[in-house]
Amino acid sequence: MWQGSQDGPSTWHYAATMSSEQLVPGHLLVAIDHVGIAVPDLDDALEFYARVFGLQSIHEEVNEEQGVREAMLAVGDSGSCIQLLAPLDDSSTIAKFLDRNGPGIQQLAYRVSDIDAVSATLRDRGVRLLYDAPKRGTSDSRVNFVHPKDAGGVLVELVQPAADAH
Amino acid sequence: MWQGSQDGPSTWHYAATMSSEQLVPGHLLVAIDHVGIAVPDLDDALEFYARVFGLQSIHEEVNEEQGVREAMLAVGDSGSCIQLLAPLDDSSTIAKFLDRNGPGIQQLAYRVSDIDAVSATLRDRGVRLLYDAPKRGTSDSRVNFVHPKDAGGVLVELVQPAADAH
Repeated sequence: MWQGSQDGPSTWHYAATMSSEQLVPGHLLVAIDHVGIAVPDLDDALEFYARVFGLQSIHEEVNEEQGVREAMLAVGDSGSCIQLLAPLDDSSTIAKFLDRNGPGIQQLAYRVSDIDAVSATLRDRGVRLLYDAPKRGTSDSRVNFVHPKDAGGVLVELVQPAADAH
Repeated sequence: MWQGSQDGPSTWHYAATMSSEQLVPGHLLVAIDHVGIAVPDLDDALEFYARVFGLQSIHEEVNEEQGVREAMLAVGDSGSCIQLLAPLDDSSTIAKFLDRNGPGIQQLAYRVSDIDAVSATLRDRGVRLLYDAPKRGTSDSRVNFVHPKDAGGVLVELVQPAADAH
């Protein structure tokens, strides 16, 4: 739920360093787990997405640590979701995102099978992650975030689903 | 490739009107076809995504009408892609997006099976689309866009793949 940098292109760069002998595994990222969208009011947004796009909520929760009330909306049978993120209070990163950017896409989350291995690989490639160790994400997943300045201005979340997730 | 509004929350609203007796089909949207990311230079971005995230380009093309050079990067075997969008010149909507926002997520594209039917349904629900009729998108798909002001600040693309697309 970390807010993306909006400093503009001048302060942004791609992560620059890696050892040249390092091989890239083909499936570091398994799928688009979800696209996170900041909304001012979760109930209004849920009503809108169901009524207009026919997208139904399959999970809702409050994450006090992240300061959000959130819902996952399944996109067909694809396994990918839209995540609606509403601020719990004015100190939430989502509240700050809304103040700065207005409602809209806030993050892009990739599903991974082993977040510890992927995190280590990304750090080896010169990418900064927000947390030293993964934190609890939606539905007891384990998550971390790539710094937007190291990922082309995109707030990238890495999500390893809970072992008992279907 | 249309640029999303950045006017902020005060001028944004959800599409408000629909007939109350209208039923919502469960699978209006089939999958996340791609997430479109604006980049200043396509070659630099392709190199970055391959080296850091292990994402490989499966298709590249120039769309003169949209003013973009673009690439599709497969995310695992999920069927969803990351689309990198670089401006062909300063008049491109992507150039304007980069000027205003810097690099980052520019659009969210849903796959649909019948774009004409989905477009008609969305219009019935009070949502404005950018084009009167679908235009040619990547790989001879047929595409249209939902106005971000009618979709919670998100530039939503609808994509019907070409009949011969795998």
